Amino acid sequence: MSHNTFGHLFRVTTFGESHGPAIGCVVDGCPPLIPLSEAEIQRDLDKRRPGQSRYTTQRQEPDQVRIVSGVFAREADGEQVTTGTSIGLLIDNVDQRSKDYSEIKDKYRPGHADFTYDVKYGIRDYRGGGRSSARETAMRVAAGAIARKVVPGMVVRGALVQMGPHKVDRDNWDWDEVGNNPFFCPDAKAAERFADYLDGIRKSGSSIGAVLEIVAEGVPAGLGAPIYGKLDAEIAAALMSINAVKGVEIGEGFAAAELSGEDNADEMRAGNDGKTLFLSNHAGGVLGGISTGQPIVARFAVKPTSSILSPRATVNRTGGETEMFTKGRHDPCVGIRAVPVGEAMVACVLADQYLRHRAQVGVVAPRWPFES
Amino acid sequence: MSHNTFGHLFRVTTFGESHGPAIGCVVDGCPPLIPLSEAEIQRDLDKRRPGQSRYTTQRQEPDQVRIVSGVFAREADGEQVTTGTSIGLLIDNVDQRSKDYSEIKDKYRPGHADFTYDVKYGIRDYRGGGRSSARETAMRVAAGAIARKVVPGMVVRGALVQMGPHKVDRDNWDWDEVGNNPFFCPDAKAAERFADYLDGIRKSGSSIGAVLEIVAEGVPAGLGAPIYGKLDAEIAAALMSINAVKGVEIGEGFAAAELSGEDNADEMRAGNDGKTLFLSNHAGGVLGGISTGQPIVARFAVKPTSSILSPRATVNRTGGETEMFTKGRHDPCVGIRAVPVGEAMVACVLADQYLRHRAQVGVVAPRWPFES
Amino acid sequence: MSHNTFGHLFRVTTFGESHGPAIGCVVDGCPPLIPLSEAEIQRDLDKRRPGQSRYTTQRQEPDQVRIVSGVFAREADGEQVTTGTSIGLLIDNVDQRSKDYSEIKDKYRPGHADFTYDVKYGIRDYRGGGRSSARETAMRVAAGAIARKVVPGMVVRGALVQMGPHKVDRDNWDWDEVGNNPFFCPDAKAAERFADYLDGIRKSGSSIGAVLEIVAEGVPAGLGAPIYGKLDAEIAAALMSINAVKGVEIGEGFAAAELSGEDNADEMRAGNDGKTLFLSNHAGGVLGGISTGQPIVARFAVKPTSSILSPRATVNRTGGETEMFTKGRHDPCVGIRAVPVGEAMVACVLADQYLRHRAQVGVVAPRWPFES
Amino acid sequence: MSHNTFGHLFRVTTFGESHGPAIGCVVDGCPPLIPLSEAEIQRDLDKRRPGQSRYTTQRQEPDQVRIVSGVFAREADGEQVTTGTSIGLLIDNVDQRSKDYSEIKDKYRPGHADFTYDVKYGIRDYRGGGRSSARETAMRVAAGAIARKVVPGMVVRGALVQMGPHKVDRDNWDWDEVGNNPFFCPDAKAAERFADYLDGIRKSGSSIGAVLEIVAEGVPAGLGAPIYGKLDAEIAAALMSINAVKGVEIGEGFAAAELSGEDNADEMRAGNDGKTLFLSNHAGGVLGGISTGQPIVARFAVKPTSSILSPRATVNRTGGETEMFTKGRHDPCVGIRAVPVGEAMVACVLADQYLRHRAQVGVVAPRWPFES
Repeated sequence: MSHNTFGHLFRVTTFGESHGPAIGCVVDGCPPLIPLSEAEIQRDLDKRRPGQSRYTTQRQEPDQVRIVSGVFAREADGEQVTTGTSIGLLIDNVDQRSKDYSEIKDKYRPGHADFTYDVKYGIRDYRGGGRSSARETAMRVAAGAIARKVVPGMVVRGALVQMGPHKVDRDNWDWDEVGNNPFFCPDAKAAERFADYLDGIRKSGSSIGAVLEIVAEGVPAGLGAPIYGKLDAEIAAALMSINAVKGVEIGEGFAAAELSGEDNADEMRAGNDGKTLFLSNHAGGVLGGISTGQPIVARFAVKPTSSILSPRATVNRTGGETEMFTKGRHDPCVGIRAVPVGEAMVACVLADQYLRHRAQVGVVAPRWPFES
Repeated sequence: MSHNTFGHLFRVTTFGESHGPAIGCVVDGCPPLIPLSEAEIQRDLDKRRPGQSRYTTQRQEPDQVRIVSGVFAREADGEQVTTGTSIGLLIDNVDQRSKDYSEIKDKYRPGHADFTYDVKYGIRDYRGGGRSSARETAMRVAAGAIARKVVPGMVVRGALVQMGPHKVDRDNWDWDEVGNNPFFCPDAKAAERFADYLDGIRKSGSSIGAVLEIVAEGVPAGLGAPIYGKLDAEIAAALMSINAVKGVEIGEGFAAAELSGEDNADEMRAGNDGKTLFLSNHAGGVLGGISTGQPIVARFAVKPTSSILSPRATVNRTGGETEMFTKGRHDPCVGIRAVPVGEAMVACVLADQYLRHRAQVGVVAPRWPFES
Repeated sequence: MSHNTFGHLFRVTTFGESHGPAIGCVVDGCPPLIPLSEAEIQRDLDKRRPGQSRYTTQRQEPDQVRIVSGVFAREADGEQVTTGTSIGLLIDNVDQRSKDYSEIKDKYRPGHADFTYDVKYGIRDYRGGGRSSARETAMRVAAGAIARKVVPGMVVRGALVQMGPHKVDRDNWDWDEVGNNPFFCPDAKAAERFADYLDGIRKSGSSIGAVLEIVAEGVPAGLGAPIYGKLDAEIAAALMSINAVKGVEIGEGFAAAELSGEDNADEMRAGNDGKTLFLSNHAGGVLGGISTGQPIVARFAVKPTSSILSPRATVNRTGGETEMFTKGRHDPCVGIRAVPVGEAMVACVLADQYLRHRAQVGVVAPRWPFES
Repeated sequence: MSHNTFGHLFRVTTFGESHGPAIGCVVDGCPPLIPLSEAEIQRDLDKRRPGQSRYTTQRQEPDQVRIVSGVFAREADGEQVTTGTSIGLLIDNVDQRSKDYSEIKDKYRPGHADFTYDVKYGIRDYRGGGRSSARETAMRVAAGAIARKVVPGMVVRGALVQMGPHKVDRDNWDWDEVGNNPFFCPDAKAAERFADYLDGIRKSGSSIGAVLEIVAEGVPAGLGAPIYGKLDAEIAAALMSINAVKGVEIGEGFAAAELSGEDNADEMRAGNDGKTLFLSNHAGGVLGGISTGQPIVARFAVKPTSSILSPRATVNRTGGETEMFTKGRHDPCVGIRAVPVGEAMVACVLADQYLRHRAQVGVVAPRWPFES
């Protein structure tokens, strides 16, 4: 992970500003011969696309992705597959309304990266947040759509589990429900509460934070690497790198601080199929930085949108004091659209670790139980 | 961060098993001409060293560090300084009691990395946890002692802020108190509660989790990089890579999920010294992945020690079911000794980001306010 | 350098196939505030562009570059400068003649990467060489145009110094001559010999190899890193990564094998300006992997174009024996167009090493002579 | 390759100065379950060890290697195998004669890295060349001994093919001869000429350069990666990173400049075993940066030892002019002892590329011929 690239072997490099001509990404190191179409990347992108309900920004971006390299028609059936070379993806920016930027070009919006980009680089593209805009996350979702196909049998899903003070009831968890409401909420009743609650927030011009959960199933045991290449460490970095994220946890997470060793232990039995059966998953699928074969469970906290209608004190570029409030199109709860982004980041980490495991060990198959 | 190396420019590579002849590390990319003695590295190591109170394992390891390369006596005054070449550090393992390993060599201790290392690699050094032992963290602390000296004026401190259900009272926070109790607790009263509580845990052969906080002051604005090289993303990975850590948060962290945009905004004023004055630090010193000049504040959750006296169900290497409990020397709350480790990891990330910032931008000085 | 990315801090990632819709590259880690226009990148690209003389392929590609991110108009004067974020560059492929690929899709052209790509990946985009086409080098030239601006005062120039048996006479060396002939030849008389010689080669449908020399002046002393990050090691990799390159040398290169220690020594004197004066440059500007302040001198050998009119024995995809010859547009001496590519690669390495030096040492100024 | 680390997945990090207490290295990313003993590493080290003939420095270093981590006794038979964790290797420096360094601490020896280290870092360990001493290459040889075992069936051998003006006769090439003379020379008659020639050089206190050839057999087709991760590019960097190397070539190398496309083509036939049969190997086993399955052939040029008895003009640390000559123990032809080092570097690159190939493609087996 450095600057605009993440991953070691499955490597994603992105470019593009919110209001420039296009955003793009290069996925390098992808295995060859994986079927890949624009349509299936588009499917994931459409989940992240703004303007699909009254709870997300009304910016209208079709986010139509083009694959410009790294795929070729397979001889046998003409299906388009990866070739092992770098995959270039492009999305043209369409909805770049010409607008008046005089308000934001010299003032720093509190909670935004305006100040830090300016202090670091001495210049920033202030139009729509420039490079720090969440628009960049569209390319993460696109890369994630490819990553999902790298690990055979893996399914990565995400859900919004808390909005402000409202949490889902885990007894009501139904993955099928996630697509039935505009919040990616797995609990139909909680979704109704979210709707009422967020309508109030939206109308008042305020915003609210959220907690999201990503679950990856079908991840083979053995992925991850000791010490600094730990699977959970890389998931933590991947999720924390998403705009507005302030916390990440695996399995019990912060709740583990209050657990005793007895309560936190995931006891093990020999399953009927000769595979390990963990009697619980407090670990969230990772022990010593390496996957156990159980579902990988990660949660992350998204802060409230910084763009709000109430004026806030701030400073300008030349040192003067002033205040600001946000006009224009914004999400009252940016956490919602972070669900497909979180899925994509976890998928990318797992694809990368899958390839790294295959490199060092040569096989991706549980060795346990060993021969006696 | 890959396998046994972390950092991009300030790079730390460690090696060594718990019960092998020695552990060691190589610090590469350190700037030249920084005064560095074994004594100052030792000072940090002594904070992490086991056996210093009844609350930590009674394993007796002097953890005496030797610098074997990368330093040389300065002409002017004979003081030993870094030369810019790789710094090799070694600690001999002294307290390797010969003992009977028959119990652990074939059984997987729940909550430990025994199972995952075996499944991944087909072999593991089971003596004392081998490579997955927290003993490796001694080298992190040693590297951190060097990292601290890379960023001029930076001070990185840590504290235990929660043990099981007991939290420190932030009104009582006194950094000087941290050295006065065996818990690195900044609240003298809380430390007393911790002592009583942990005595009970210890005597019952149980264990408990904890939350730690690391604060880095004197960090210049502008460190960190957009998108995937974000300062907070790398702190998250660094802390999550520490043994037994299950969650990481920056600033408000998970609490941000319940905050409104108004409450979470860090308003800005022009300070008397012409520098930015943030009226709060909900952000924990990072906006858009780049440091704001405010203190960097990170917290992490450590799970309870997996080694407990109560037997737990598990499996053995060849697929049989069995149970285990832990004999021998262990920490009832591993979180305690993670305090100097957490400090070291944050210091390493900041040293690395400092060098990366200097590379790209050439100066490490706030540019704000700009000339009008 | 991995797959499709090179550089550590000044990082270049390319994508695109010869006959796909576009080729592109992402330059990451570039310092901010460097003036950068499409016109100046275009200037370098035009030097590499095919079809400019009868000695290069007649493929007509305007190679018009677009900067799609990473630049912004400077407040003071509206000049477009880098912003420190990733710079996306795109060139549309225009001259993709629809043609019959049946000849090359199943047969392996000797000397080409057809066989190795197929063996490695199980599939290849055979149209025009796909990813292995020299077309990719256009993006190297574009990236190099940016790299040149990173090191203040640096000038990187290249020349063709040998074509087949014909070498330039170093006594006739005139950099201004390089632009006056279609061979980038610094010796006007040699250029005439090259022209006659290559006309013969071209008409016979044959091809010939070449040797190129790249000279970088204005490179400060101190760039490069000990042991594995040596400046000359990275130049060697960068040049060897160019299509068809089979050898690289620095300074005396292979001739050093026949030199005595006395003859190879670059003696040193104190120049009038208080700077070091080397009395010769057998070292090619690098000692111990670090620049001396003298010009960096590197040469590389390019093999003859593999595409020739004479049929050659080969095999096909399914194991049958056959033969092939090349129809279509090709360069009789691919070495010619490699001159701007070699310049670009050396410039990229130096920009990267410049940033890495600034990171570790903080200043880029000769320290010598030291105070007594 | 950065600073003191090379390799992407099979990663080698070295530390230690010529006259410090020890030198060491960490090999990270090695596959598990590979039998590894100190004895077999020692075997390679003994080939590089000084003081074995009158043609190499008389410094007496036993170079006794210790493995301090990353190996463990296999359950089945007690044989020591790799565990997949980082392998720490140490060699104590024994022959550190206390001597008078006043001559070299302030003066820069021409052709050495004294000046460039000082200019870069402002300080250097001048004792015996410090970090820039060829002593570091002992750790490369040790790492190479491990690398050789990573690629099944691979054999990497090296030979001295030219000393000053004297070249081996390829018709006399006999690998078995390499161990029969102190020059690693495969031609018994040439070895006699080398002996006479070098005796003269040695007695006159002069030195001479050399050319070495490394051949890797048993390398599967498909290793290497397109564009910047090319196998030959990485071999070039690896060999150029060895002390005193000034040139590297693959296959025909610089001779390719004088070849026609017809003469340089490696024609292909279908071998009796259903595998490709190349009718020649001008390419040196690499096409498009990817191995063809033929032997990898690389040559590199080593400059004459800079340490000679004749005084040479130079400058001192504070800008004064002076002159120097070398007293003490040195090799008249450093190229000789570079043979095992060159073998080791090529082995390391191939091990790394083998793992990277396995990561991306999952199998290391020629796919050709494909099913029809």
